Amino acid sequence: MPVGTLATVKGISTEQLGRTGAQMVLSNTYHLHLQPGEEIVAAAGGLHRFMGWNGPMLTDSGGFQVFSLGDLNKIDDRGVVFRNPRDGRTIDMTPEHATQIQIALGADVAMAFDQCPPYPATENDVIDACRRTHAWLERCVTAHTREDQALFGIVQGGCFPHLRRESAMAVASFDLPGIAVGGVSVGEPAEEMHRIVRDVTPLLPSHKPRYLMGIGTLREMAIAVANGIDLFDCVLPTRLGRHGTALVGGERWNLRNARFRHDHTPLDPSCSCVACTGHTRAYLHHLIRSEELLGLTLLSIHNITHLVRFTSAMAQAIRDGCFSEDFAPWEPDSPAHHTW
Amino acid sequence: MPVGTLATVKGISTEQLGRTGAQMVLSNTYHLHLQPGEEIVAAAGGLHRFMGWNGPMLTDSGGFQVFSLGDLNKIDDRGVVFRNPRDGRTIDMTPEHATQIQIALGADVAMAFDQCPPYPATENDVIDACRRTHAWLERCVTAHTREDQALFGIVQGGCFPHLRRESAMAVASFDLPGIAVGGVSVGEPAEEMHRIVRDVTPLLPSHKPRYLMGIGTLREMAIAVANGIDLFDCVLPTRLGRHGTALVGGERWNLRNARFRHDHTPLDPSCSCVACTGHTRAYLHHLIRSEELLGLTLLSIHNITHLVRFTSAMAQAIRDGCFSEDFAPWEPDSPAHHTW
Repeated sequence: MPVGTLATVKGISTEQLGRTGAQMVLSNTYHLHLQPGEEIVAAAGGLHRFMGWNGPMLTDSGGFQVFSLGDLNKIDDRGVVFRNPRDGRTIDMTPEHATQIQIALGADVAMAFDQCPPYPATENDVIDACRRTHAWLERCVTAHTREDQALFGIVQGGCFPHLRRESAMAVASFDLPGIAVGGVSVGEPAEEMHRIVRDVTPLLPSHKPRYLMGIGTLREMAIAVANGIDLFDCVLPTRLGRHGTALVGGERWNLRNARFRHDHTPLDPSCSCVACTGHTRAYLHHLIRSEELLGLTLLSIHNITHLVRFTSAMAQAIRDGCFSEDFAPWEPDSPAHHTW
Repeated sequence: MPVGTLATVKGISTEQLGRTGAQMVLSNTYHLHLQPGEEIVAAAGGLHRFMGWNGPMLTDSGGFQVFSLGDLNKIDDRGVVFRNPRDGRTIDMTPEHATQIQIALGADVAMAFDQCPPYPATENDVIDACRRTHAWLERCVTAHTREDQALFGIVQGGCFPHLRRESAMAVASFDLPGIAVGGVSVGEPAEEMHRIVRDVTPLLPSHKPRYLMGIGTLREMAIAVANGIDLFDCVLPTRLGRHGTALVGGERWNLRNARFRHDHTPLDPSCSCVACTGHTRAYLHHLIRSEELLGLTLLSIHNITHLVRFTSAMAQAIRDGCFSEDFAPWEPDSPAHHTW
């Protein structure tokens, strides 16, 4: 899922986004609550109509942003009180409130309000966060009254294997239509994250979508898919694009680099996006050097297309029964980065 | 002509640009010479291929930018020496050099290198600028050896009617495939500009394209068309778009304004651009308030579409023989702003 924080995937029109092959778009409850406010999105007929996206959508619960971005005043079992960084206003966020906002936003999937502990965190802090996350999940389930919207629970547990397993079983017991693994990609080493995925995923119902939050790179996604993950979200393709970086093969290319100045070949000859079929590396280099908006747009389109191609290739390999052979990312000499 | 200063109409892909109905795109010789350099554009196969635009293109000569933006070191009959503001390098620009650069850029129309006097200027300064402009035009014609590219001359003369008429006749005597009226929209009152157009246009060959440089607004364009002008360029639609302003009817709307917050209607119900058919005023307001790039892109697309619709309506009215009736912009109660 490309990330459309404020009901727009940064720099890309919905038409351009559709042509990347992306299906589901994530948007952020925390940000949309602050601007423009869920009542405006609801009055527009919901998030799909507000932003003009006809594909499926998911809203996160805002938990991650409240804990990582908010100026926290108070946190207890009831919920979180924080200060809006835009206007200093005090905002009271509870599992019920986060659920009501998401009901008003009207995405296809809403996420439970959770407490995401930072990395590193003590075992006691993570135990507290898990207890609260599970108690809040129960309150979210009760508050979630919209039948045409799915509610996913979120597994926490930091880097403590037994807490991860406990959390996975606690969340799975709610029998929700999908489950996410949260609290990853928060600064922990990549190997920790992979271990969490290996430990947790087998405990989640295999017939329901499993969503790894905030991931990722090609390697991370391949490892996660090998362990049974179905869904990802990541700001990486658009954030890299806005910084003039293109994902090509398994590499990251800084298009500002002088080596592209005279390079009149396509960015990635194997890619069918508009940046690769309609333009050249020299032109993209020129746009990035000139700080032209179109450069950021074209690179973001390419990067999303690149990740969508990779996930589509994995899906095809699974259908063809050759995923382990073609994408075995746990092998040191994995061909994952050059066979798709 | 929308303006694509650096081989990109700011914030808009060539595909989006094509859908505005715009045909010809202007690009800037001065800016392209500094970045990326005409040798790179030429190696790409020319400006059309470099930026991926299949329609006609025109490059200005850089004269206007050299005089208005450059750090001028020296100007004489030979040419202009100025300092590149990007790297401090000294650049020598002559009529021959400006012509060679444009030959390398390879637009369909190249413009003669002229001296554009500022406003206000003394009569003696304007006499000097005219003399130089005409002498330079002769050198441009000699230097212009590319047969698949048209060279247009530029009429100067400031706000002095007799100098404007002299310049018009001098430039017309070269029998070039098109003529531009330059040195307008440089700070003079609108009435001065309209008087210049009224005085000069009848002296130009009526069977060749007549181009009014740096114009304009709906009213300015209607007056100019009434006087026989065929071609315009203006940064207004994209510059306004980047500042969150939309052209609607005869007005300029600041989409940041709170009155659009709850307005879930199309920006301009009579417009068929993607901003008007795919989104609402409330969404555009949200994008502009959030400083999202997509807001600037959508408003720029709308504003270009708006001006193209207006010029197309004028062209249709001329073909239908009702231009004077429908667009008579010189009448105080002109219906020009509400009948198209």
